[in-house]
Amino acid sequence: MSQPKAVVLLSGGVDSSTVLAIANAAGYETYALSFRYGQRHALELQSAERVAAALGAARHIILDIDLRAFGGSALTADIDVPKGRETEHMASEIPVTYVPARNTIFLSFALAWAETLGASDIFIGVNAIDYSGYPDCRPEYIHAFETLANLATKAGVEGTLRLRVHTPLIEMTKAEIIRTGLKLGVDYGLTLSCYDPAPDGAPCGQCDSCLLRAQGFAEAGVVDPIAERH
Amino acid sequence: MSQPKAVVLLSGGVDSSTVLAIANAAGYETYALSFRYGQRHALELQSAERVAAALGAARHIILDIDLRAFGGSALTADIDVPKGRETEHMASEIPVTYVPARNTIFLSFALAWAETLGASDIFIGVNAIDYSGYPDCRPEYIHAFETLANLATKAGVEGTLRLRVHTPLIEMTKAEIIRTGLKLGVDYGLTLSCYDPAPDGAPCGQCDSCLLRAQGFAEAGVVDPIAERH
Repeated sequence: MSQPKAVVLLSGGVDSSTVLAIANAAGYETYALSFRYGQRHALELQSAERVAAALGAARHIILDIDLRAFGGSALTADIDVPKGRETEHMASEIPVTYVPARNTIFLSFALAWAETLGASDIFIGVNAIDYSGYPDCRPEYIHAFETLANLATKAGVEGTLRLRVHTPLIEMTKAEIIRTGLKLGVDYGLTLSCYDPAPDGAPCGQCDSCLLRAQGFAEAGVVDPIAERH
Repeated sequence: MSQPKAVVLLSGGVDSSTVLAIANAAGYETYALSFRYGQRHALELQSAERVAAALGAARHIILDIDLRAFGGSALTADIDVPKGRETEHMASEIPVTYVPARNTIFLSFALAWAETLGASDIFIGVNAIDYSGYPDCRPEYIHAFETLANLATKAGVEGTLRLRVHTPLIEMTKAEIIRTGLKLGVDYGLTLSCYDPAPDGAPCGQCDSCLLRAQGFAEAGVVDPIAERH
């Protein structure tokens, strides 16, 4: 029997890079999917390319989609990224960095690719702990997408493929994610988490994503290779 | 109270143009959304622009998305569009013109725009009669998307907006759609249905979409202004 294929959403950050390693370790031939969606920086896509290559994805596609056309988020529009917040405040509210319907759009494209590949598995690095403020990171949302996916596609309707959306990180702390990735050989020196990096890729150290990353490495008892470099 | 807003998916064909007129007639301020998705022809987008202007949409956005990256359909890849089929054969199978996950992708973007606009209504011209072979044109699919939408978004989770997906054409025949549109003032001379038009916009007259259109105008007892022109 040939190796099953899986589409893996890959941003180039700690979480999605770990997910790619998990999908590989689970025996899938992995197809990594990233998006150029009007982010302020393209550096995270360079990280995604490096990570996909390092972890041996069978293919890596970067799709252009312009979420800026709609506005509405600090990650796509000209709103300041919040800096220096306490991490416990991040989980309790929907942050301004929330991009409307982002995961729905990303999963829809993953579904299109999965159907074309004849793949029945999609992996996404959502996390319900650190980012509980994002509605589209919750288990009930993921289950609703699976239901939709199996009604949306030729393969689902014909019963030839039962689509599953895997969220291996959904209940993990950042420290658990990092420990898991290190065991699977992820080089976190290739990843980028910062919402607002310098042109040379140096993280700002102050945005929510940098703070969660720093806390995660501290709790895992490991030095962040990026912090070491800059 | 200000006029409620609705996002209307608009391809520039008979169905979606009729839907835009229906949404206007229902009292919505309409926001038309079209996609340049690696179609063989951009002529249908010109039709969409003309229709949006003629029907007075508050805004019309055309988003670039490249479904060709995945392949898998006669409408996006280099597979021949079938010609000269009997219309009763169209409904019984999933056609090669089926684009993987297309409506899921389109509705996801509509959802993103709706959330940004503070709109709770999305209109889509799916039809379960003429296109029963498309899994993502069925009522159960649309209901699953509504469920997803209300779990996916800040507005849905906070209970400030209850998202609805309207499918006014879902049970209509093509003739009923055309009669409805004519009553609402749709100029079908602006629309384009053909999957494979000549460079000047002349329909091929042989593809599934042309055949359904011709049958619809015949049954409605109306001359198609496009057939008259070419």
